[in-house]
Amino acid sequence: MQSKELPHVIIIGCGFGGLEAARSLAGAPVRITLLDRSNHHLFQPLLYQVATAGLSAPSIAAPIRHMLRRQRNCTVLMAEVTGIAKAARRVSLADGQQLTYDALIVASGATHSYFGRDEWAEHAPGLKTLADAFKLRARLLSAFERAETLASPAEREPWLNFVVIGAGPTGVEMAGTLAEIARHTLRDEFRRIDPAAARVLLLEGSERVLQAFQPALSAKAQQQLEGLGVQVRTRCKVVAIDASGVELEEQGGERQRIPTHTVVWAAGVAASPLGRALEVPLDRAGRVIVDGSLNIPGHPEVYVIGDLAAAQSHEKDGSSRPVPGVSPGAKQMGRHAARQIMARLILNRPGGQTLPPFRYRDYGSLATIGRKAAVADVGRLQFSGYFAWLFWLFIHIYFLIGFRNRLVVLMDWAWAYWSFQRYARIVVDDSKA
Amino acid sequence: MQSKELPHVIIIGCGFGGLEAARSLAGAPVRITLLDRSNHHLFQPLLYQVATAGLSAPSIAAPIRHMLRRQRNCTVLMAEVTGIAKAARRVSLADGQQLTYDALIVASGATHSYFGRDEWAEHAPGLKTLADAFKLRARLLSAFERAETLASPAEREPWLNFVVIGAGPTGVEMAGTLAEIARHTLRDEFRRIDPAAARVLLLEGSERVLQAFQPALSAKAQQQLEGLGVQVRTRCKVVAIDASGVELEEQGGERQRIPTHTVVWAAGVAASPLGRALEVPLDRAGRVIVDGSLNIPGHPEVYVIGDLAAAQSHEKDGSSRPVPGVSPGAKQMGRHAARQIMARLILNRPGGQTLPPFRYRDYGSLATIGRKAAVADVGRLQFSGYFAWLFWLFIHIYFLIGFRNRLVVLMDWAWAYWSFQRYARIVVDDSKA
Repeated sequence: MQSKELPHVIIIGCGFGGLEAARSLAGAPVRITLLDRSNHHLFQPLLYQVATAGLSAPSIAAPIRHMLRRQRNCTVLMAEVTGIAKAARRVSLADGQQLTYDALIVASGATHSYFGRDEWAEHAPGLKTLADAFKLRARLLSAFERAETLASPAEREPWLNFVVIGAGPTGVEMAGTLAEIARHTLRDEFRRIDPAAARVLLLEGSERVLQAFQPALSAKAQQQLEGLGVQVRTRCKVVAIDASGVELEEQGGERQRIPTHTVVWAAGVAASPLGRALEVPLDRAGRVIVDGSLNIPGHPEVYVIGDLAAAQSHEKDGSSRPVPGVSPGAKQMGRHAARQIMARLILNRPGGQTLPPFRYRDYGSLATIGRKAAVADVGRLQFSGYFAWLFWLFIHIYFLIGFRNRLVVLMDWAWAYWSFQRYARIVVDDSKA
Repeated sequence: MQSKELPHVIIIGCGFGGLEAARSLAGAPVRITLLDRSNHHLFQPLLYQVATAGLSAPSIAAPIRHMLRRQRNCTVLMAEVTGIAKAARRVSLADGQQLTYDALIVASGATHSYFGRDEWAEHAPGLKTLADAFKLRARLLSAFERAETLASPAEREPWLNFVVIGAGPTGVEMAGTLAEIARHTLRDEFRRIDPAAARVLLLEGSERVLQAFQPALSAKAQQQLEGLGVQVRTRCKVVAIDASGVELEEQGGERQRIPTHTVVWAAGVAASPLGRALEVPLDRAGRVIVDGSLNIPGHPEVYVIGDLAAAQSHEKDGSSRPVPGVSPGAKQMGRHAARQIMARLILNRPGGQTLPPFRYRDYGSLATIGRKAAVADVGRLQFSGYFAWLFWLFIHIYFLIGFRNRLVVLMDWAWAYWSFQRYARIVVDDSKA
């Protein structure tokens, strides 16, 4: 079906960056092999909704090969990449196969970082994959269930304390939604405990929530969180996490222990370990430092994009600033890499700069907090509250993949809005702990 | 909230039987404690649709405490029962708690039986819980993915052979749907393999598929299965299952080995191990033999219902016949047990027969085979094909729990019908094997 003579482009990872790169090469005279460990593309901005039982997994995940079925120049393989040999232009897979490439796009993303405290991972799961979301959902729902089975308030307390670490967009969304679940969704369903008595703590190391936003919006976000019942603690350092609680230190304050069995990690992100396999300079977070063409030094055929890349946006005035780790950044890098490949491989301009260096177009930032609460920072416009929340809903449904998913998510949210219910409240767990 | 003086009814298990018993006691002057290992009631007749990626899990599972939130006399606990002390009227939970009862309904259902070959379980998972369905879904979808990564047809073959063992309703549904996925759903999505070349084998030990139906309908079902591309083998005994294949023996034939990595077990059912804890006579399948009141011998306060019970239907003419292991049977037993409890505990008729002995009302049997194919055996009417399939759709949507789920499932099926797609094609698996 595909001519062996055509140049071979390998893309590793089918997140926002890898998918956009593959699509940008549709119709181009290349053979593409798209490798991903999982069989689906995940709409990560809504992953917290799966973790908090508001959406079912298939609503935010689509089979990669189905999305690309009409792109005949693209072969999708569900496979794990174990190594990259730059000199030989070869990628090794976990099953022992080796594939050679003419151009390579590495877009394997990021994972959690516990800042060297990997033993915390067990007690404070993060949120990057559907498996993570299911694990978190099971823990959150089971905590209320466990509390209901226990006789004394003292035994129940640690099951009714929820701690979210890190007040970036994910942490803020998780904390806001958890408070909403405790106060509204579970109302009248328990006989021994009052779920509204649950305590939701949001801990942040820096001086404000949503650091990437304007300070005024951070303040609004904190107000809205507190309105939902979340206890926000900024300038607060986590010093220990174990099976029975979290130990924290507030600036100028004393150490304090919060007894809890339910901790959500939304603090640290580290680049995928595949960055190291390239044997090139990395930044402190393990991200690969790329040039204006998104290449690594000395290898104009190797591109690194998305969360794995430490890329600069080259502004028109000659200055540069880091590209933020958000989905529009990954998509724009995917498009840029695809265009470079076409220019070099197909139009036969193998060396040097063929396109202007990468420039990130910032369309703004959005974060939701909970029911009718969000903040938006769009160009010169900053707004918060109900209108920001509607805007957030609209944008997320617009960018969801597939007509069916847009329709179903819209319906689910309308239903949730009127009923205060979350329909995916199921614990699927073999251990049933 | 609940008076301690009221009689305490414990119900173990919230399948069709347990749920119906709890609901039938709504408003009665009793305290009910409903115990279940999981937090959701599962609509098991559609579980195969989750396993074959046609529906998402929340569409067929509802949180038990949400379903019963308005029934103030009922406390729901997510807990595992580890023992029953009949003489002391006491139930022990896995966390060490003990609960005493005035009446007990045991409705803990059934699990898979591998006829003493428990080592087969690993290679041939069955389908009873949502965790089972996810495991099967991951295996089925990953098999096609693995085949696509392999270079030689010989390596691919075992990944494109699918074996379903047992041609009862679940086996027939699984085999028909698998054939449909291979021939329609995955069309055009692979570049190296042709999914339509996959072989789906349905193995049955007896002389026909769907033994519970009239022989003419069994023949129709087999025709329809073969029309979808399923290879049906009856009078076929499975003698071995391991990681690389299934060994079978056809009547009068030789032993044969089918190389496959994907086997579905739909053959044997064994009653829940809780039946043994009652220390009363069991039948060969481990089910508890109950009398016309659904009680165990000498304990009019202990009821066993649903798949765990070996119950007789006491006909008006004095004859009796076994109650089949289907959801209407479980529901009717749940209602019967609840009525007995009300008569004995509340109307103070503690001894003997207070209601006529249990009689099962048979409204017929239905089984679907795949797209536009089903068989129906309803009283004097037997029919098959398109109309039976529509009838099957209607009945299953009617009995689904919750308005939202009915609407969503109806939409999902309409969409699947027109598009040939199955939207829940995601593999959620940590190991990513």
